[in-house]
Amino acid sequence: MDKKISLTGIKPTGMPHFGNFFGAINPALELTEKYQARYFIADYHALNTVKKPQEMIDHTYAVAATWLACGLDPQDALIYRQSDVPETHELATFLMAFTAKSMMNKAHAYKARVQDNQASEKDADIGVNMGLYTYPVLMAADILLYNTNIVPVGRDQKQHVEITADIAQSINHNYGEEILVIPEAIISESCDIIIGTDGRKMSKSYNNTIPLFQAPKKMRKQIMKVTTNSQEIEEAKDPETCNVFSLYKLFANQEEQDALAARYRAGGLGWGHAKQELYESVERKFSPMREKYDALIEDRELLDKILKEGGEKARTIASSTISRIRKAAGFPC
Amino acid sequence: MDKKISLTGIKPTGMPHFGNFFGAINPALELTEKYQARYFIADYHALNTVKKPQEMIDHTYAVAATWLACGLDPQDALIYRQSDVPETHELATFLMAFTAKSMMNKAHAYKARVQDNQASEKDADIGVNMGLYTYPVLMAADILLYNTNIVPVGRDQKQHVEITADIAQSINHNYGEEILVIPEAIISESCDIIIGTDGRKMSKSYNNTIPLFQAPKKMRKQIMKVTTNSQEIEEAKDPETCNVFSLYKLFANQEEQDALAARYRAGGLGWGHAKQELYESVERKFSPMREKYDALIEDRELLDKILKEGGEKARTIASSTISRIRKAAGFPC
Repeated sequence: MDKKISLTGIKPTGMPHFGNFFGAINPALELTEKYQARYFIADYHALNTVKKPQEMIDHTYAVAATWLACGLDPQDALIYRQSDVPETHELATFLMAFTAKSMMNKAHAYKARVQDNQASEKDADIGVNMGLYTYPVLMAADILLYNTNIVPVGRDQKQHVEITADIAQSINHNYGEEILVIPEAIISESCDIIIGTDGRKMSKSYNNTIPLFQAPKKMRKQIMKVTTNSQEIEEAKDPETCNVFSLYKLFANQEEQDALAARYRAGGLGWGHAKQELYESVERKFSPMREKYDALIEDRELLDKILKEGGEKARTIASSTISRIRKAAGFPC
Repeated sequence: MDKKISLTGIKPTGMPHFGNFFGAINPALELTEKYQARYFIADYHALNTVKKPQEMIDHTYAVAATWLACGLDPQDALIYRQSDVPETHELATFLMAFTAKSMMNKAHAYKARVQDNQASEKDADIGVNMGLYTYPVLMAADILLYNTNIVPVGRDQKQHVEITADIAQSINHNYGEEILVIPEAIISESCDIIIGTDGRKMSKSYNNTIPLFQAPKKMRKQIMKVTTNSQEIEEAKDPETCNVFSLYKLFANQEEQDALAARYRAGGLGWGHAKQELYESVERKFSPMREKYDALIEDRELLDKILKEGGEKARTIASSTISRIRKAAGFPC
């Protein structure tokens, strides 16, 4: 039996950080075992916030190089740029005709923005562009174009997959046949929240991220900035409430975690020591990937080749979906 | 100097009627003298309401045959199906990122629906699909893709051209160069309102239309149904307040109008006589076109050929616009 198809998108909105790695890239890469895995760089989604062309270019290469460095094998899995598959946009227009506006009004990203505006006594829609508002429809097109069965998402993105399934069902119902595959979300339980340097969820919007690939010296400096409490060296410390330990758990095996936890509880471990342990475990994990990353990011020709080939494969699948919906709707094929 | 470019779209949502002819088709066809005229069948717009494939197919051919029968010369002007130009959808996604949601909230078609819902004490967005809501963005893509200078519109569509200009200006401003041509609306003053059989504006939604091309017997029957007052034959009548006369003016020259008006005012003219005059003038105008229409509608191969050739020409222009915006935004070209 053919493997089911999984799809993961990541926005090229900046240098990938720990949160991206543990929350998205790593769980998505683990799926290649079980699924026919597809990955796309959501550059058209990024256009809502990335309005400078050079940033778009740099971030796109950064994301591609990151995923490849993290272990994505383009012979085994598909990687492509959303912008290399124009069929996405035709499907998005198609989906619009079957999407209730009331469903968009309830989408989390939009609602959060409205709440922010209302909290600061502004008009609900101030600063909201149509790209943000229609984001779930474009995402539905990304998913449905490739007959996706499984979408690995963070908990906050689950709603988008439900919206996608809803729209696809309306279309299948209207045309009386299974034109679109109904996708399902799977949530990576263990990695919902990665703590940032200030103890809040690691997120570009909180400015508390640690980039994945940076020179060891810079990496160390950032790890040394992780917020801790003001306990003295000699005091016994609680690993479970500590941001440094929370990050350490991502890198260390159980044995290493138990050992460091014991040193926390015994007292005599300073924050600098704990951070040094974290830094070393980070380096052990990321330095081989960083080497690959550094080589790839210097070879844009190779990245272009990989992405272009992926894009061509993606378009073959996309064209066949578009033909199906065009035929169903009475458009020329 | 090159002629400026004009663009006109018509939705294939049913058999074209008098209102379409005098309000849209005829003024648009007159523009070929002054402009490099382009016409497209807005089938993706129609998808918001036309959910049955056979209707989509039939209406599309009906619109194409109508325009050609009304005098559109595909050697001189461009005619194509919107769905034959997938670049439209990519541009629409692009525009979304530069379109304020607050602008969409004010679009007439959406606002009218909200008001209807509120009048019947429903939720504002009940029955509104995203295709209706984002209609002005797709229309902006239709316009901007072809470097359109001039959009002939009814008064109620003027706002859409203003929205289009607004979005294009944001994009040019962001990228610091003239990537998109800023369009202007021109309004066909004389033909704003064509009266339907009941005296209200002729519109499919009022069910008061008279189809352009139908067998003479049917045409006569429908003209006989035009609402009049209950004056007797011998009474003097006022042509200026009469629906029949209002329609007659569309078909008759000044001399003919003056003659019929004199008979109205003299008394002795029954409504049946007036309607017969109207019917005969309609037949004089439309019967040669109807013959062409009848031949074309039976020759779908020819229609397909004309539309396909138009679509190919349109795509050449569209591709060049898309390349321009992709390059500006930092997408691969």
